[in-house]
Amino acid sequence: MDVKAIIQTIQSIIPEQRILTQLADRYSYSFDASFGEYLPDLVIQPQTKEEISSILKLANEHRIPIYPRGAATSLSGGPLPVEGGIVLDMSQFPKKLIIDQENLLAIVSPSVITGDIHKLAEEGDLFYPPDPSSSHVSTIGGNLLENSSGPKGLKYGTTKEYVIGLEVVTPTGEIIRTGGKTVKNVTGYDLTRLIVGSEGTLGIVTEAVLRLIPKPQARKTLLASFGRLIDSGHAITNILSSGILPSAMELMDHACIQAVENYTKSGLPLDAEAIVIIEVDGHAAAIEDEIKKCAEICRKENASDILVAEDDTERDKIWHARKMVSPAIAKMGPTKISEDATVPRSQIPKMIERLHAIREKYQLNLVVFGHAGDGNLHPNIITDKRNIEEMKRAEAAISEIFEAAVELGGTLSGEHGIGLLKAPYMEMELGKEGLRFMKLIKEAWDPNHILNPGKIFPKPEQTRVVLI
Amino acid sequence: MDVKAIIQTIQSIIPEQRILTQLADRYSYSFDASFGEYLPDLVIQPQTKEEISSILKLANEHRIPIYPRGAATSLSGGPLPVEGGIVLDMSQFPKKLIIDQENLLAIVSPSVITGDIHKLAEEGDLFYPPDPSSSHVSTIGGNLLENSSGPKGLKYGTTKEYVIGLEVVTPTGEIIRTGGKTVKNVTGYDLTRLIVGSEGTLGIVTEAVLRLIPKPQARKTLLASFGRLIDSGHAITNILSSGILPSAMELMDHACIQAVENYTKSGLPLDAEAIVIIEVDGHAAAIEDEIKKCAEICRKENASDILVAEDDTERDKIWHARKMVSPAIAKMGPTKISEDATVPRSQIPKMIERLHAIREKYQLNLVVFGHAGDGNLHPNIITDKRNIEEMKRAEAAISEIFEAAVELGGTLSGEHGIGLLKAPYMEMELGKEGLRFMKLIKEAWDPNHILNPGKIFPKPEQTRVVLI
Repeated sequence: MDVKAIIQTIQSIIPEQRILTQLADRYSYSFDASFGEYLPDLVIQPQTKEEISSILKLANEHRIPIYPRGAATSLSGGPLPVEGGIVLDMSQFPKKLIIDQENLLAIVSPSVITGDIHKLAEEGDLFYPPDPSSSHVSTIGGNLLENSSGPKGLKYGTTKEYVIGLEVVTPTGEIIRTGGKTVKNVTGYDLTRLIVGSEGTLGIVTEAVLRLIPKPQARKTLLASFGRLIDSGHAITNILSSGILPSAMELMDHACIQAVENYTKSGLPLDAEAIVIIEVDGHAAAIEDEIKKCAEICRKENASDILVAEDDTERDKIWHARKMVSPAIAKMGPTKISEDATVPRSQIPKMIERLHAIREKYQLNLVVFGHAGDGNLHPNIITDKRNIEEMKRAEAAISEIFEAAVELGGTLSGEHGIGLLKAPYMEMELGKEGLRFMKLIKEAWDPNHILNPGKIFPKPEQTRVVLI
Repeated sequence: MDVKAIIQTIQSIIPEQRILTQLADRYSYSFDASFGEYLPDLVIQPQTKEEISSILKLANEHRIPIYPRGAATSLSGGPLPVEGGIVLDMSQFPKKLIIDQENLLAIVSPSVITGDIHKLAEEGDLFYPPDPSSSHVSTIGGNLLENSSGPKGLKYGTTKEYVIGLEVVTPTGEIIRTGGKTVKNVTGYDLTRLIVGSEGTLGIVTEAVLRLIPKPQARKTLLASFGRLIDSGHAITNILSSGILPSAMELMDHACIQAVENYTKSGLPLDAEAIVIIEVDGHAAAIEDEIKKCAEICRKENASDILVAEDDTERDKIWHARKMVSPAIAKMGPTKISEDATVPRSQIPKMIERLHAIREKYQLNLVVFGHAGDGNLHPNIITDKRNIEEMKRAEAAISEIFEAAVELGGTLSGEHGIGLLKAPYMEMELGKEGLRFMKLIKEAWDPNHILNPGKIFPKPEQTRVVLI
């Protein structure tokens, strides 16, 4: 079958207005929130699982690369069509969002904005804890396939812990269901959790069953400033060993505080080496007591300043500072390389030391913030991709960041995914055999490598991270 | 290589005293807590991962079935050596149990008794929530491979939610590590959760990293009796939609109450159609308030009697009645067929109705109890395997139980596993393609089917559940 015949077959499956072939359209699908650019040959906006199944069968037969794409907020190049072929724009899939109040479930289609799940669940006094910082714009389909989770991982676990069933189109075009509507299910292998976090390389999600929990009745928030970074680390550890499980513990280093203050005067202490935002949620009486204990522990660990939010306005003000981190960083330079190396919590102070040493060594604009409770740090390098010399330094720095994370018992990625950019480092963390046993699954399910090729698994010739 | 040469090779890997060949020894390894009996050719007690690796390489080369076995409390025939070959007795593996207080982790070897993890964690004011009812005797290795979880699944999730890293020997003898020591980890596919619950068909676990949480400060327990089963169902649903997330909600039906009272006078109300045990845990002030609300809801739903435990003695008395269920049932007849069909919580009253109708239709001794909060019911049929006619009725009844669970949107097994006994029903729940995509993983990892063959995947000739 030649290209013309393939296009004719696609036109017999998908109505013309949902097949985009113009350069301007294709260009809109050539990038994500990382910094690569790859033009797809075609963009398709499927509206049923059957359409997806037919497209995948065709693609499988003719070895056409297929790239599923949600809102394209990926920081690791997840949806980039690096080998051309077809982008499947899942953001235009019909939106389905049903809250099953009695069974504490949400039934969702992949195109639903994650923030809309939060809102509808909360209207029924329920709660969907995963909350990636892009959740107001990113789709649940992308969140699931990347297992991006946000600040509440410590207390509530990651996105994966809330997905109990999926409808999936396999790389060879079969429609299967995994898991179901029960929290407990041991009928065969856990394909649900295999597909969640598989970065679109094992199947395309067309529906998901999410587990909800009762909405916490109340929450309390504090912001503590520390003159010494090491003290903030001790405070975090001591809070956790005191029996309190905060719903969030966010850390910002000195460079990050400066960036936010330069961007928007939030009144953050410019002389602090670190600030920590701690939030507890649950029963009103319990958290009143817990936030007092958290403040006490911070004080003992030499916090220079502690602000406990007395009401929602004060709480919003505290979180505003944290939410300004990304725009503040974006303002610092045209290219942001956002990493998410994650270490066992006790290693956070050491990891931050290593990050600061890397910053000095390579003379880069590097700020650190992150979810301290679960060890998930977000070192960000701000640079300009047109400055080849600086990008080379960034490249070397990132390589050292990965090495430091793995040396300290951690992982390359806590929630951004491997995508394109971290693929060359997989073997460093997993070993040759660990990586091979992942590949065996990919090859068994997608023998022709048509689904999101070029992601997760490094190609022999791919040795660089940044300068792709 | 002939049998003699294979045995010589095994003797070069494993010291003689850890290779059991006598009939009496082999017989001890021919059964588990289900009711099949299969004699292995050989039993090996490995003590290092390298020994296991060598044995698996040999087995893979010569197509020798390998059956890993922990404490053999499986209710689904998990460790039964149905094709002969070698049983790997993992209960004699060196015991390793380290609590990492700072990172809220436990590092364990597979032979550790799960109850010992509970004890040591609690000494450090930490908490490992999964608690299968066999946890005082069963090993963590078996718990992990079956993903057996116990009563706390509703609030705390299943065993899987607490396993973040594994060391595994693959079916072809490679030693790999999956996951790590961080709650967040998206480096490649989630092999950890694939192996947890794989019933020993994908690899042998030699070490696991478990996530712990701070120990709840206090707990409160109540027992409510209901004249009508349907009212207990409403009470359960209304408690959950009131914003309370109990740590356990246990249900016992009339036949179960009778069995317990006949066995040990616990003072349970013999005229009740159902009793429900509800436990809340957390901050002392919070649970005081929550247990009151739970009692109020039960009262509104026509509970005939509500007992709130005032102290630990009263609490122990309530749980004693629940813990007597298994011995009470064992007393009723020589053969116990213990199922764990699980349905979405809202379907529990309907499922119990279906179970009672099945009991009438087949005139069987069937009692129902279970973890009502997560929809995980345990219908138990008490029979005598020498009574062929009754076993045939049991066979037909179990088949109908599975059909009912799947029809109500549930699953064959919530935590006992598929093992040998439920394999013929896999396709009913998963569909042909769903099952095939599981098999593709098995075949990719274990091309010669040496690891726990005869489990999970039905053989074409296997059509019966009970009369194997």
